[in-house]
Amino acid sequence: MINKTIAAISTAKGKGGVAIIRISGDDALLVAKRMMKLRSDNIEPRKAYYGEILRDGEVIDDGLLTYFKAPSSFTGEDVCEIACHGGIYVTGAVLESALSSGASLASAGEFTKRAYINGKLTLSCAEAIGQVIDAKTDSQLRLSSSQARGILSSKIDNIREKMLDCISHAYATIDYPDEDISEAEISEIDDCLDYVISSLDSLKKSYHTGRAVCEGVRTAIIGKPNAGKSSVYNMLLGEDLAIVTDIAGTTRDVIEHTASVGGVTLNLADTAGIHETFDTVEKIGVERAKSKIESSELLLCVFDSSAKETSEDKFILECASGKTAIALINKTDKECMLSNEFIQKIDTLCHKKIFLSAKTGDGRDELAKVLSDMYNLGEIDLSNDAVISNARQFASVNVALEKCLEAKEALTFGQTPDIICFSLEAALSELDLIDKRGVSEEVVNAIFSRFCVGK
Amino acid sequence: MINKTIAAISTAKGKGGVAIIRISGDDALLVAKRMMKLRSDNIEPRKAYYGEILRDGEVIDDGLLTYFKAPSSFTGEDVCEIACHGGIYVTGAVLESALSSGASLASAGEFTKRAYINGKLTLSCAEAIGQVIDAKTDSQLRLSSSQARGILSSKIDNIREKMLDCISHAYATIDYPDEDISEAEISEIDDCLDYVISSLDSLKKSYHTGRAVCEGVRTAIIGKPNAGKSSVYNMLLGEDLAIVTDIAGTTRDVIEHTASVGGVTLNLADTAGIHETFDTVEKIGVERAKSKIESSELLLCVFDSSAKETSEDKFILECASGKTAIALINKTDKECMLSNEFIQKIDTLCHKKIFLSAKTGDGRDELAKVLSDMYNLGEIDLSNDAVISNARQFASVNVALEKCLEAKEALTFGQTPDIICFSLEAALSELDLIDKRGVSEEVVNAIFSRFCVGK
Repeated sequence: MINKTIAAISTAKGKGGVAIIRISGDDALLVAKRMMKLRSDNIEPRKAYYGEILRDGEVIDDGLLTYFKAPSSFTGEDVCEIACHGGIYVTGAVLESALSSGASLASAGEFTKRAYINGKLTLSCAEAIGQVIDAKTDSQLRLSSSQARGILSSKIDNIREKMLDCISHAYATIDYPDEDISEAEISEIDDCLDYVISSLDSLKKSYHTGRAVCEGVRTAIIGKPNAGKSSVYNMLLGEDLAIVTDIAGTTRDVIEHTASVGGVTLNLADTAGIHETFDTVEKIGVERAKSKIESSELLLCVFDSSAKETSEDKFILECASGKTAIALINKTDKECMLSNEFIQKIDTLCHKKIFLSAKTGDGRDELAKVLSDMYNLGEIDLSNDAVISNARQFASVNVALEKCLEAKEALTFGQTPDIICFSLEAALSELDLIDKRGVSEEVVNAIFSRFCVGK
Repeated sequence: MINKTIAAISTAKGKGGVAIIRISGDDALLVAKRMMKLRSDNIEPRKAYYGEILRDGEVIDDGLLTYFKAPSSFTGEDVCEIACHGGIYVTGAVLESALSSGASLASAGEFTKRAYINGKLTLSCAEAIGQVIDAKTDSQLRLSSSQARGILSSKIDNIREKMLDCISHAYATIDYPDEDISEAEISEIDDCLDYVISSLDSLKKSYHTGRAVCEGVRTAIIGKPNAGKSSVYNMLLGEDLAIVTDIAGTTRDVIEHTASVGGVTLNLADTAGIHETFDTVEKIGVERAKSKIESSELLLCVFDSSAKETSEDKFILECASGKTAIALINKTDKECMLSNEFIQKIDTLCHKKIFLSAKTGDGRDELAKVLSDMYNLGEIDLSNDAVISNARQFASVNVALEKCLEAKEALTFGQTPDIICFSLEAALSELDLIDKRGVSEEVVNAIFSRFCVGK
């Protein structure tokens, strides 16, 4: 089954100058040769050859063929990439020709899945490639690109090696059950274990940042009518929009609900929702507004500083209680009319307060700094540090860490080495889930089916 | 100006596995090397090199670089193609990096324009490449792909050569003004001219087909309420939809108003319009319906054969008078209740009548045959014959033909060779407009600005 030759359009759907049809499997070159009239029969790997593209013996387009010989290809199999003209119909016709020349249609993520199965990629690299493609912000791109190039995998390999050291030391003592474990040996295992625990702890903590960057923080902007929620919303989106509109052809709606502020990805409730958040309080009741707030991880509470606080403002502030909330004291271009008492209450109930003018953008940098600090972006180098960025990886790191702590406890309380080994082996097999070994087919399929076709 | 190095995303915008950034100009390789960390310094042309892609010194992605050395490239200049991951943001970031490494953003069609200016493509080939990318139907793809590969250009070169023969023969006689043109010479020029005239005439006639395939025929489906206009509309779109839904990711709305029937492209008024065409007669008046009909080139008049004709049917049939109209006598699954008198009137006023059942699809093949015959698709091999497919080309062929006919007349009436030469030279310079020489910059800019960015 795995050696079935597959084909798909690897470039985005739509009209473009060029499109690429990717073919992978034992028959890739055979399929490509069947569907192209090339000037040469001898196709060297990694060289681009011009040729006419045929369908049912009739020329339908012309383009370039590049052949990647197994195992030096993306999938680790023989791969042919055919670059043709990038129209919707012509690209479909070229794919059709690949299919009628012996290839089967690839399913979503099948190329990357094969790369993983053939050992060309670790599982976390494959996930990171998906994140590179999905990246909507600069931090997402930097983080996922570094993990795609294996920074997390290297770190895990390193931890794994140290775990194996601990295990082999502990086993060595099992082989001599009559002797007590020597102090020196205990100390060696202990040091090694401390390193593993501290590394896993760092990885675990990195998820706070990785998640805020990659998955994003569910954020609600709340405030009474006319407090400036829309202006805040527009101010937050501003940075991203500026980046994106530099690039011809990318559209606003792709990112309109995702703001990147201080490197943190804020998943903003849609504008309509924001406008309603508080307005509905009067109409539909407090409960609905509260449920919106409940489901958010971060509240941006907007207060109008140009007028004395109202009962609505007090209600908003009470909502912040027990939540992660940042108070945005808006309209700093005008005189502050909020009472000292109210501002003190803000200090008590909110994580931070920022004076800003959403209109002029004053205070945005401070908000960026606050968010960056809250999610430790200053401490982590997204392009070079190993970072956990999804719940699957986090769960494994967490369990591995717990098992290591159990082993540490066993060691400290002088328990027998087999108990230490038992915990360490459990930790190892959990850690191995992250990148390669022992992941169920179901998990693998779930991961790759989230990819687009052609990847 | 022309040697400014340009860059653009050449693949379609959107999320995909792979995207290509194309860089063209003297500095293409320099720009590519600045933005990539390659394993080798020595970049051979046409070979794919793996490397990390940098932006401001930081790795943002990895991918493949292929270098095409001038003049053996699409544009005729040095070209580098960088294949990176196909996300929207990452692709934009890689393009950004190319721009900050010294390239300028390419404008729409600029790559193809440079290919034309550098003599890599004729103007009609460049136009045909645009049509390949825009192709929505199989006939459009076959026709434009063959013209993109130069079939029309070769034909024009051939006609051009024969014209030059005529001119040189005629000039030869001017050099000996005292002598009469010999019979043999006249006969030689005459034969040659006949060949040119017949070739130009074929090209001129081919526009009837080329236009029907490439630009499409503005078609209105008219009929009284419940005659079956919607069913006819769905039946016509059926074939295309079936092809398109085979390909994952292509969307219905791309072609929803273009039907390909018997190889002819029917540009159908939108469904809403169709539903209204006749219904509005009662409401808004006959004039509006008539104006819709006026602006169409082809009418498909739908009659319900399961009931006796009404005054509405008679009105519809009168609309057909003087227009190119096909009568679709619908609901053949039921007994025909139309009067013989009415059917005879259909025969008089309509180009063809077809009995069909739009519901079952019976009669569709006959309609396809009728349309194919009407637009000479049986006589032309779209994949191998030279075909004129736009108004610009048609205008030039038309004028060139007229000038040749003038030359022929001058020859027949024994006028002096300089008069013959004058007409032939006018014909030649008109013909030259099609592919290369003497086209104004304005026309060239207009042609290439219709291309997408990255082509």
